[in-house]
Order: sequence, then C-alpha cells, then structure tokens
Amino acid sequence: EIVAAIAAALGSGPLGGRHVIVTSGPTHEPIDPVRYIANRSSGAQGTALAAALLALGARVTFVTGPSTIPPPAGAQVVRVETAREMQAAVLEALPADAAVCAAAVADWRVENHSGSKLKKTAGGAPQLVFAENPDILAQLSGLGDGRPRLVVGFAAETDDVIAHATAKRARKGCDWIVANDVSPATGIMGGSENAVTIITATGQEAWPRMTKHAVATRLASRIAEALA
Amino acid sequence: EIVAAIAAALGSGPLGGRHVIVTSGPTHEPIDPVRYIANRSSGAQGTALAAALLALGARVTFVTGPSTIPPPAGAQVVRVETAREMQAAVLEALPADAAVCAAAVADWRVENHSGSKLKKTAGGAPQLVFAENPDILAQLSGLGDGRPRLVVGFAAETDDVIAHATAKRARKGCDWIVANDVSPATGIMGGSENAVTIITATGQEAWPRMTKHAVATRLASRIAEALA
Repeated sequence: EIVAAIAAALGSGPLGGRHVIVTSGPTHEPIDPVRYIANRSSGAQGTALAAALLALGARVTFVTGPSTIPPPAGAQVVRVETAREMQAAVLEALPADAAVCAAAVADWRVENHSGSKLKKTAGGAPQLVFAENPDILAQLSGLGDGRPRLVVGFAAETDDVIAHATAKRARKGCDWIVANDVSPATGIMGGSENAVTIITATGQEAWPRMTKHAVATRLASRIAEALA
Repeated sequence: EIVAAIAAALGSGPLGGRHVIVTSGPTHEPIDPVRYIANRSSGAQGTALAAALLALGARVTFVTGPSTIPPPAGAQVVRVETAREMQAAVLEALPADAAVCAAAVADWRVENHSGSKLKKTAGGAPQLVFAENPDILAQLSGLGDGRPRLVVGFAAETDDVIAHATAKRARKGCDWIVANDVSPATGIMGGSENAVTIITATGQEAWPRMTKHAVATRLASRIAEALA
C-alpha cells in the first residue's frame, strides 16, 4: 500500500496520471431513524479493485457505502449512505478517465420515510411507498463530453447470470459488465473469492474462480490496457 | 474477561449459579438473496451488558444478530439473522433466571421474500407484503412456569420516550424497561455513550449520560440485586 501510495503520488505506473472513480459497498435507504433497507455487499471486491488501481499508479476516488472493510490507503475516500448521496459524490468527482461501479446500489428508496420511529399499530404493517433511485451507471454511461472513457459496471445475479448481465450492459450503455453469481450456494457473497465473467461489446470471457484480490489485479490490468 | 470467565466457571460472584439470556444487535429480514431490512443497532450495549453479567459470575447465553462487535468471552454465543431465528434460540436457551432483550428486533418481516434477486420491471417497485414478527419480549414475559424471574426489555425511541416506554412495559408484561432516546441528534445510536431511564412497576429512574460500559455495569448490579 505504501508502494501504491508513492506510485500514485509520483504519477508513475501504467495508470500514472489517470483518475479512476470506484464505487463500493452497499447503500442504506432509511425507512425511519432506526430502520433501513440494505444490500448484502461487504465492499471487499470494490476495495480490492481500488487498491489494485492505486498500485498501477492511478489517482482513485473511492465512493463507499457503509462497510466494515477499511478503505485502501492512498485513495480519496468519500463515505456515503444512500444511492442519492452516492450519485452526488460520483458526479462531484468527475472528470475521470474511468469509472467502475462496484457498489450494490439500492434500486429503490422509501419515499415516505419517517423522521420518527414508526410504531406498531392496529392498522398493521407500515405502508412503504418506494421511489426509484437514480441509476448511476446508466447516467455515467450516457454523459456526453464528460463521459469517462471507460465505464465498467458490475452485475450480481442469482440466475441466468450471463443473460441478465449481457442485457444489463446494453441497457446501461456501459463498456464492460463484470458479472458474478451471488447465489448463496456459491459462497461468493461475503467470501474471499469471486468467479466473474467479463462482458464487453465484442463478447464474453469467463475467468476461473480466484480470490477477490486476484480478480482486482487482473481487472486493473485490463483497465490500464484500455486506457493506454 | 479472563476474570469474568473464571468467575463464571467457578460459579462465584453475586450472579454465581444464575443463567441470564441476553439478546443483542439487529435482526436482518431478507427481501431477496441480496436485499434485506435491518435495524440500526451496533450491539454495543447488549455486548457490554453480557460482559458485565459474566463479570458478576452469571452464566450468559448471548443471542446476537449480525454485529461487527466481538461477543464477550465466556458467553455461550448463538448467532442468528432473523427475528424468528432469534425467537427459536431464546426459547431453546430456557430455563433462565433472567432475560434481557437488548436486541433491536424487526417488527416486520417480508412475507413474500424471494429466492431470486428481484429485477427492476416496467411495473415499478416490488410489492412487499409484510408479516408481523414474533414478539420475543412479550412471549418471555407471558410464560407461565418457565418465565424467567426477571424479564427486562429495551425501548429505543425518538420522541415521547418515557411515555412510549412506560406503555411498552405494560403492553409487554415485562418487569423493567430500559428506555433511551435514539434520535440522531443524541449521538447514542452507534456511539459509545447512552442515557437511559429505568422504568419499573413502581416508577422510573433517569440515569445520567454515561458510557455504555458504565450503563452495563450498573444494570448488571441491579439485576444481581433483583435475583438475590
């Protein structure tokens, strides 16, 4: 990490002089002051990726939801809680050469979230009204002049992984999708390993199961090649 | 902690030979494999209380939801995720001389939670159907022969704290309620301090703001007095 910090400071390495935005972790969407909706995301893959990009000399803005994993040394860390806070932080961090959206952003927020703790009532469960959250990946991908040259999304799926991820790439307009199967049986969610397929405009490439650290190193190299 | 472990093993101390069940932390209620509803509870107060009870010689069954705080050494630790798992673990741990329900249990679970990741659709947000979770505190309080001699609940409120907590004590049928104000402005949620009011059948007693560790020590002493 010290080497990475020095490399980034000196602007050396294959990503020297490049700025990469990495989003990581879950978002928390409040229901009331004590309850929220969350995604299961440890932030392990996003954190490892940011560290790998730093090691290649990139300047990294690391926009992270609540996570117990310490952010990588040398990154510009922006801590957020909700999808809308994450969106604002990402837009604020532009311009960037690349953006990697590894965060598990909630698709929905509770529009009628309460400033007071909701009480059990005879009327039954609270009626939650959902509103769609901003789609940060699609927004970044659709930017005109300010679009990062490379926009990478992640797709965490539990079935029809490749089909869903391929459709996601087309729908969002991003360059690559890193697809993985987060079914409980895989042990990937919360674990130290990952098995991903990289989906691009020209095809797909399945990587063998390896540590999240190894996925990060390999993906950072690919990003460096794409920006070279 | 070593002293506490030895004290418990030897059955010495004012709570020697007593069995106390402590619930702690949040519960997580799944929406689908990657999304869940959670409470904001670090588990700090429950963990500190279990440690304080162990230090007084009690045998402690510590039933905890997901928490990043390590459980106290010497406790019998049972890790759960949902309210129904917590209920099962508590009932399994009976008989007990006292039960302290410090966990922030979700009042509701998602009855139609999905085994596959819910997708965004043109139809809008997913329709979540809520079902009421079991009320562990009320159930323990209402047990006949198997009722712990002392049942203590916690009330985390954001407004009308004492009124809500007093009503809660009567409604649940427990002996004491430890009431605290978790409004964001207090900094208690996720912080190291707490300001509680102990509500009993005969009145209420407001304790000054102090560390959660100090609250735990004082509450453990009171529990020892009640069971003496």
